[in-house]
Amino acid sequence: MSTAINNLKPAWGPRLDVSNTVDVFAPQSVAPYTPPPPGIDNLGITSTDTFMVPGKGEFKVDFKGYVRVARSTPTAADWNHSEVFTNLIEMCMRGESPEVGPIIVTLNPDYLSTGQLWTPACDQEAEKPAKACRMAVTALFEIPQLGLTLFNKEPILLTINDVRAIPPAGNPGFGRIYEKLPLYNRADPEGKPVADITALKFAMGTYLSEDELQSLRSN
Amino acid sequence: MSTAINNLKPAWGPRLDVSNTVDVFAPQSVAPYTPPPPGIDNLGITSTDTFMVPGKGEFKVDFKGYVRVARSTPTAADWNHSEVFTNLIEMCMRGESPEVGPIIVTLNPDYLSTGQLWTPACDQEAEKPAKACRMAVTALFEIPQLGLTLFNKEPILLTINDVRAIPPAGNPGFGRIYEKLPLYNRADPEGKPVADITALKFAMGTYLSEDELQSLRSN
Repeated sequence: MSTAINNLKPAWGPRLDVSNTVDVFAPQSVAPYTPPPPGIDNLGITSTDTFMVPGKGEFKVDFKGYVRVARSTPTAADWNHSEVFTNLIEMCMRGESPEVGPIIVTLNPDYLSTGQLWTPACDQEAEKPAKACRMAVTALFEIPQLGLTLFNKEPILLTINDVRAIPPAGNPGFGRIYEKLPLYNRADPEGKPVADITALKFAMGTYLSEDELQSLRSN
Repeated sequence: MSTAINNLKPAWGPRLDVSNTVDVFAPQSVAPYTPPPPGIDNLGITSTDTFMVPGKGEFKVDFKGYVRVARSTPTAADWNHSEVFTNLIEMCMRGESPEVGPIIVTLNPDYLSTGQLWTPACDQEAEKPAKACRMAVTALFEIPQLGLTLFNKEPILLTINDVRAIPPAGNPGFGRIYEKLPLYNRADPEGKPVADITALKFAMGTYLSEDELQSLRSN
């Protein structure tokens, strides 16, 4: 976290210098309860997002894709007291719905999506406590059939509980959306919201091989 | 919402042009289930925030103060289908704790805090439905005894349910904080978080008179 990157765009939390950070691909064996050296995790991801679009109603869409998550050096060598900061540096998920056709979700390049893994204070003296994980994400939702790209202004807070290994590959998580999170039209960013996300659940996948990542990227 | 204001700072949602909007002070009688003409509501507010500050532990602080909330023209004349957009244009709350001394909470001038009142879609055809209210807030927490001003990067989402009149004077509400919301040091904005808010509940007060507002402002 020495040198700042991406200084020109706002970030939801600490920026990581990833210029010398190694990519981590499958196959990997991840040791539980062990703060890992820094890296960029290349992981699968699935997500089920519920949208409310005026005129189209409320509908669920299943997404599948990948993320690249940069991790900081842990703040301590022991599991219990270490905190790890993360930057979501790449994401692409694809889904399709009868209501609006295909939807492609990517990171909003105007913001840096960031997060952290930590042990809740009340658990720090426990034996092998679970960590918690939070990530504030700003995304683009491209809907080609509507000629529309939606974006969120308030971050989507993705959380994973019961984290026993870093990365939390295979863990389910939730978008902490209270009632609704407004989405805006990228072609009219100062306008009123044009849709909402009303619910979001996701699951981190396992490590991808370099070939799998390239294949997902070129889809 | 015709002319944009404050174009230079980021906003969490639609900006209101408040240049010709009248201030609304006590005494007022507010008609239930009635979308009001636009105005700037001058209201009391109380809040109980729970902070986690490393070295100081987790502690609750009771705050009291005022807000000035600009309201848009409702999007429809009838209660059920009207949506009202809001900008929080001024806030000051004061509290004190044995752990850190006085804390003064004001709006972060670098962001425009915004919100909306709406009828949940499933209730729009009900007889006299309650509305919901959400406001995304970016604040400063000045702690003079520590020589520290904290700020949030992710907005604090304040919500009020069961809204039967606008403004929802007297209604209780919650900050929708999942586990923790990181706070940063304004003197080191790119650094790691230095504290967290772990819980927040609040209650909108009733209309203030112009004298009461001036008295609270000059405290």
